[in-house]
Amino acid sequence: MPFDKHTRLIVREREPFNAEPSPDLLRQAPITPNELFFVRNHAAVPVVDAVAYRLLVDGMVDKSLTLTLEDIKRDFPKRTVTATLQCAGNRREDFMKIEEIPGEVAWGAEAISNAVWAGAALRDVLVAAGVHVKVAHAAFVGLDEVEKRNERFGFGGSIPLEKALNGEVLLAYEMNGEPLPMVHGFPVRAVVPGYIGARSVKWLERIKLQTEPSDNYYQAHAYKLFPPHVRAETADWENALMLGEQSLNAVICRPVDGATLEKGAVIVQGYAVAGGNRRVERVDVSIDGGETWTVADWESENQSWAWRFWQARIELPPGAQQIVVRAWDSAANTQPEDARRIWNFKGYMNNAWHKVNVIQK
Amino acid sequence: MPFDKHTRLIVREREPFNAEPSPDLLRQAPITPNELFFVRNHAAVPVVDAVAYRLLVDGMVDKSLTLTLEDIKRDFPKRTVTATLQCAGNRREDFMKIEEIPGEVAWGAEAISNAVWAGAALRDVLVAAGVHVKVAHAAFVGLDEVEKRNERFGFGGSIPLEKALNGEVLLAYEMNGEPLPMVHGFPVRAVVPGYIGARSVKWLERIKLQTEPSDNYYQAHAYKLFPPHVRAETADWENALMLGEQSLNAVICRPVDGATLEKGAVIVQGYAVAGGNRRVERVDVSIDGGETWTVADWESENQSWAWRFWQARIELPPGAQQIVVRAWDSAANTQPEDARRIWNFKGYMNNAWHKVNVIQK
Repeated sequence: MPFDKHTRLIVREREPFNAEPSPDLLRQAPITPNELFFVRNHAAVPVVDAVAYRLLVDGMVDKSLTLTLEDIKRDFPKRTVTATLQCAGNRREDFMKIEEIPGEVAWGAEAISNAVWAGAALRDVLVAAGVHVKVAHAAFVGLDEVEKRNERFGFGGSIPLEKALNGEVLLAYEMNGEPLPMVHGFPVRAVVPGYIGARSVKWLERIKLQTEPSDNYYQAHAYKLFPPHVRAETADWENALMLGEQSLNAVICRPVDGATLEKGAVIVQGYAVAGGNRRVERVDVSIDGGETWTVADWESENQSWAWRFWQARIELPPGAQQIVVRAWDSAANTQPEDARRIWNFKGYMNNAWHKVNVIQK
Repeated sequence: MPFDKHTRLIVREREPFNAEPSPDLLRQAPITPNELFFVRNHAAVPVVDAVAYRLLVDGMVDKSLTLTLEDIKRDFPKRTVTATLQCAGNRREDFMKIEEIPGEVAWGAEAISNAVWAGAALRDVLVAAGVHVKVAHAAFVGLDEVEKRNERFGFGGSIPLEKALNGEVLLAYEMNGEPLPMVHGFPVRAVVPGYIGARSVKWLERIKLQTEPSDNYYQAHAYKLFPPHVRAETADWENALMLGEQSLNAVICRPVDGATLEKGAVIVQGYAVAGGNRRVERVDVSIDGGETWTVADWESENQSWAWRFWQARIELPPGAQQIVVRAWDSAANTQPEDARRIWNFKGYMNNAWHKVNVIQK
């Protein structure tokens, strides 16, 4: 399906369809409109018939469930959560300037968006199925068909049961008050607030309760974090850091990199996201490489699961200038300064200080 | 009381008594023996009679409780939690090398320890009292007497109700299987795993349920985080970051700073702590300022609330060398590199890469 037609998104890959908005479009509203929400797919978008659709909940449960879309809407209270999803590969493009990362999507800093999701709480569905004591993970599989290692399978991943039982994890069938768009997982997707986007599996076909994390390629192999010196040939996949919660991140959306600015004070605007259930507590902007900082003001609410828009007014001397940003979370963690120190050959979790270069007239 | 007699701790202040173990002693066992556990007090240690002791639970509750030590032991199940406490001022000494921080304790990197705590779950006590819907914070006050601004009051602080209702927050009366020592809060203290030590109020006199955070000096004023350029005279206390969860941290305990090392491979050992309910997922050690890293091995379990001991074997060239360490938490956050970038005039939350300088023979 030609999802790259009539889109205002920057298309990073046509098939599978991968696209993100421009920084300027992204920063227009704290709730991203559906048509501007970044798209990260690993296979062709499946066309799912809403009437024929069935969601299987099985594994270590008292009673396996086979749910229609109508069952999900009718049998469980409708829950609403505002949540930011972010691809683990967001800001990979800046990593690629340090060293090439073959075979991965070259995301700018806009593989992130925020929406109001509505659906059944996963918790309520799991309670109805009756989860066994020994269960430690809820594993999702989608209806899409990925091809890897000569096999075809649905994209999948898992989350710890502790997270799955929190009310904020949804089996979402609405996005910003509309039925889930096809590219975003129609008719039902998982939405796992605070986690990397890959765990919010789209076109959800099955939820299996089990003792171990998912053995799906995208949990057991991809989405793992390695130290900077490791390459594909030397990677010990078994012992690498398995990604889960998002890391703390902050990005400058305006002015954009390379902009020439008029004389006068500059309004710097961007987003910050805390990850997990933490909140963004402070955002600092610097024009001297971190020697001194201006504390930003807030342009949106401070809530769990959602990014926070910020703005700072700065006086910039004439000439070529660099603006940098860093955020602080509610545990007083801040971001690493130098992307080279956290570079990894898969290009995940770039949360080094974001920098834009501008010319001040 | 002369708490500095017969101690193996390094005494940073005699009255109030503030002391920490040496790095080498701290690293001897993952469970710190009571006599080696760091001590952070803000006033003289109160002498509390265990029979006369009463804990008041009041504020927005259905029924105020006045509990004796025996009530707490008898009426609520005994819960055990292994938890690391860390002073928000841990590693302040390294901040002081950048610029002086007058009026604060010069902590090394050992204002942190780990113990097995036992007591009533705060949750169970709050359920017994019946917490009102509008409550947002549980505020603790101790029996010690701080003098500040010509007033005398008990040291205090608060935690969000959401945290207070988690099973891991204890009203502890035992530390490593023994009654709580006097300097550690006999007969009862709060233990708030994952939070800065200041919230684990000792010699607990009162727990008040309320809509706002505590207005005690140590919540409303002290223990706030400022950007590097702010000084006491320019501080906007109202709008500063109020500390809560601990930040991610890692420290090299062996070899100690300034050591001369024998020829051969060096075993580097230390601790790492994730903060909040996160876990430490990786520790990296570098001998070239972060250009390349050695991933450390684990010397203790990976559990919520407790630090993790790690060890790395490295080959060090002859001459003056610097060893640095950084940790990664379960949300793929790592630590900032440069202490100057996070320096603050109160000297809190130094979690820059820890560095030790050694001479290799």
